[in-house]
Amino acid sequence: MFIQNTWYVAASSEDIKDKPLGRMICNHRMVFFRNLDNEVAALEDFCPHRGAPLSLGFTSGGNIVCGYHGLAVDCSGHAAAMTGQNTSQFPKVKSFPAVERYGFIWVWPGNAELANESLIPVMHWYNNPDWAYGGGMYHINCNYLLMIDNLMDLTHETYVHASSIGQSEIEQEPVKTTFDEKTVCTSRHMSGIKAPPFWQQALLAQGLPANEAVDRWQVCKFSLPTHVMIDVGVAVAGKGGYDAPNQYKAASTVVDFITPESETSMWYFWGMARQFKTQDPAVTDQIRQGQGGIFGEDLQMLERQQSNLLHWPQRRLMKLNIDAGGVHSRRIIEKEISLETQLTT
Amino acid sequence: MFIQNTWYVAASSEDIKDKPLGRMICNHRMVFFRNLDNEVAALEDFCPHRGAPLSLGFTSGGNIVCGYHGLAVDCSGHAAAMTGQNTSQFPKVKSFPAVERYGFIWVWPGNAELANESLIPVMHWYNNPDWAYGGGMYHINCNYLLMIDNLMDLTHETYVHASSIGQSEIEQEPVKTTFDEKTVCTSRHMSGIKAPPFWQQALLAQGLPANEAVDRWQVCKFSLPTHVMIDVGVAVAGKGGYDAPNQYKAASTVVDFITPESETSMWYFWGMARQFKTQDPAVTDQIRQGQGGIFGEDLQMLERQQSNLLHWPQRRLMKLNIDAGGVHSRRIIEKEISLETQLTT
Amino acid sequence: MFIQNTWYVAASSEDIKDKPLGRMICNHRMVFFRNLDNEVAALEDFCPHRGAPLSLGFTSGGNIVCGYHGLAVDCSGHAAAMTGQNTSQFPKVKSFPAVERYGFIWVWPGNAELANESLIPVMHWYNNPDWAYGGGMYHINCNYLLMIDNLMDLTHETYVHASSIGQSEIEQEPVKTTFDEKTVCTSRHMSGIKAPPFWQQALLAQGLPANEAVDRWQVCKFSLPTHVMIDVGVAVAGKGGYDAPNQYKAASTVVDFITPESETSMWYFWGMARQFKTQDPAVTDQIRQGQGGIFGEDLQMLERQQSNLLHWPQRRLMKLNIDAGGVHSRRIIEKEISLETQLTT
Repeated sequence: MFIQNTWYVAASSEDIKDKPLGRMICNHRMVFFRNLDNEVAALEDFCPHRGAPLSLGFTSGGNIVCGYHGLAVDCSGHAAAMTGQNTSQFPKVKSFPAVERYGFIWVWPGNAELANESLIPVMHWYNNPDWAYGGGMYHINCNYLLMIDNLMDLTHETYVHASSIGQSEIEQEPVKTTFDEKTVCTSRHMSGIKAPPFWQQALLAQGLPANEAVDRWQVCKFSLPTHVMIDVGVAVAGKGGYDAPNQYKAASTVVDFITPESETSMWYFWGMARQFKTQDPAVTDQIRQGQGGIFGEDLQMLERQQSNLLHWPQRRLMKLNIDAGGVHSRRIIEKEISLETQLTT
Repeated sequence: MFIQNTWYVAASSEDIKDKPLGRMICNHRMVFFRNLDNEVAALEDFCPHRGAPLSLGFTSGGNIVCGYHGLAVDCSGHAAAMTGQNTSQFPKVKSFPAVERYGFIWVWPGNAELANESLIPVMHWYNNPDWAYGGGMYHINCNYLLMIDNLMDLTHETYVHASSIGQSEIEQEPVKTTFDEKTVCTSRHMSGIKAPPFWQQALLAQGLPANEAVDRWQVCKFSLPTHVMIDVGVAVAGKGGYDAPNQYKAASTVVDFITPESETSMWYFWGMARQFKTQDPAVTDQIRQGQGGIFGEDLQMLERQQSNLLHWPQRRLMKLNIDAGGVHSRRIIEKEISLETQLTT
Repeated sequence: MFIQNTWYVAASSEDIKDKPLGRMICNHRMVFFRNLDNEVAALEDFCPHRGAPLSLGFTSGGNIVCGYHGLAVDCSGHAAAMTGQNTSQFPKVKSFPAVERYGFIWVWPGNAELANESLIPVMHWYNNPDWAYGGGMYHINCNYLLMIDNLMDLTHETYVHASSIGQSEIEQEPVKTTFDEKTVCTSRHMSGIKAPPFWQQALLAQGLPANEAVDRWQVCKFSLPTHVMIDVGVAVAGKGGYDAPNQYKAASTVVDFITPESETSMWYFWGMARQFKTQDPAVTDQIRQGQGGIFGEDLQMLERQQSNLLHWPQRRLMKLNIDAGGVHSRRIIEKEISLETQLTT
């Protein structure tokens, strides 16, 4: 079950250049391509002529042309041309609202009439000289809710990411969970601890000492449909922690867009928007590589957890205090799905 | 659904030498082997002793010997011998009529009593000094009807085979479709066009100019159960096209034997029988290589089309004029299947 | 269907050192690990917190620690500790009786109250200076009963293992089958034959002539739940065969522990306990390599046989005299399963 009437990240801007991209979003097989104005369109990946996937075709004159027999379909899904054929009565290809924003392609898999671009959340770090961004994507064979659980409870860093960002102080510090109708926030503030390897590098990049005591924070913010933004950072101990002046800290936001592919698979767009060394592309590359390695450590755990849940479908999981972030996020999602279901029945 | 009471090509003659060959035809798991007279036999690939596949065994004295415990079975499926056992009461292995002809092994998966070798179509090019033949085989994960559609509408060449035999003149020339109770013919005749790369090479091999205007033809002939023979060629423009004298043209027949493996997979035997440079094996090899590459371009399209049709099983495809060849071929096949079903119920 | 109230071999002792081992036994996903006393424990491979497999975790202080959020579980399945949590009310992880003996880990998948270590069969060759042992394991995608059939009828050696231990004299010598309520024995004694390659090497290693006539024996003993021990060997012809004095023979026991994974897959622990050159590790390695190669020849046959039986589920197999060993072993197993089913219903 997925929220359908919402914007999901379907791809990064660079994923769609000259060639169309086929990708399944919330069980919808879609093809993404650009028109002559470089705007992105999303259609069902099914040519009405003989059922071939349009994503095996090519773009021409702003249309997508089926690679089998050449039916050209425009951005809105109308049959535009086919050599030797009058296409005026051809069936329309289902289209999905799609928008490019913040370096990503956003798609609305549900009722197109409800799609409103103003509902796309603002990414304040985009094209902002105070920030730099780098990221990547993973395909993971697990339900998207398992990834939300993962990100809303960073206790797992102590175990899954022991060699990079994990440290025992994380789990020793009680997590605080707050929530309202649409959002959830879990936060941890650790004082006077040693920075783990990833943050030691960030401190050095910032010109700060790597081996002295720091205050460290993790503030995980869930918002609909499936976004998790995590403010993370370290500051020289005693300078105010999360609120310390910029010169005493290395701070960034972990950006997580989670997009369901099917009930048991998902697209994971991860990245980091940082406020240190923002003009240095080498630091961006280094962080992307490090973050990619760290997030890759979650893959096997999530996929094997999914396998176990499929093997024992009747089992109920525990809901500890550390799980409250995921539990409340799931409730908000379930409520949205329930509302959508009522609307359509 | 397949026609069962018919001859299908199961293998090429070279596929079955000393070793038996296991292959599934129309959902029947079969093993093919040769007896002492070099005749080919087809049996169910199941040893009645313990269920091992006979195809893992070996041939000896004209029998196939199970590789597990040594039961020898003769060409007609009778248990012939087993060390220490009296095999006279052993169950018979189901046998299928099989014949070697024209360099292929033909098998009849249906009612053996109806099998009649005279129903095997004549391949006039076989062992004929005016012709040369070369070919190969692909296993494709799609229903066999999708391949018939593909071959009965060569419009797709413009898109799928753009770099070899495709050219925009194909789709610009209307296709003409004729049919009777048992056969379908779709044809295109293009006048005064430029030869595409494949045919330029053929013209050169024939000692004809490659860059001057030619007349080109494609005449696709469907016959039961699933054969598609395509007369193709180019002639120096104005010399009569399809009917031009041999010295002005490069002509050949694309030979397509399509054999269902299961509802979603098939064996594709492709080849070319040509009337130019017939004594030159290097030309045969060159054409086989080129044709293999071209037909390989269809594989991904057919398999992804099949995947889409399985994903959207309720969808009906369009039937344009260019699809008439496939549509009529399917009707003839469906009618045969329907007649067979009535006979057996 | 499997016997559940019994000891199966789950792993060799070396398979479980510092890292936990995940392995499915009789459809139960299990994790195996050692406590501080080096004793082996077996638990369900499912963390009650969030369903992650415990086998992705690590051992610490005699407990297994979940690699996701750090729940520590002790040998008996009780939640032992979790940072920041009171685990006293946590659900217990299901545990399975497990014992290390004879270089193997034995597990009891059924009712733990019935588990009795005295039911583990005695391996007289273990830590016995008159014997040497070497072995290995294969995972095979077939039902475990097919492997019992295989081992209780060595007629197949003539065909499957023609180049190593097979010889036509095996199938020419009638097999003798005896059985009681719990065991089955099939035996063959061949007199005055030529030793096959494997045994020629053993004779040479023993300082005996390789090319002179020998007496050869194969005595296959099935015992519950799924063990097959095979006394094999050759003796200088006329010296008593199976009962010949040690200096005239090369004798050993093929040790086969067969453990179901699922209805269509199994773990096969094979080895050889020998009475010749017992102090020579090079001979152990050579035999292990040879035996591994020979037993690997059975894999394709067994997996393809399984595939055929799944394809034709209604077919009944033949039961010849050579199959009597497997037939009686299956009856004993079926009777045990039937008794267990009555007990639990």
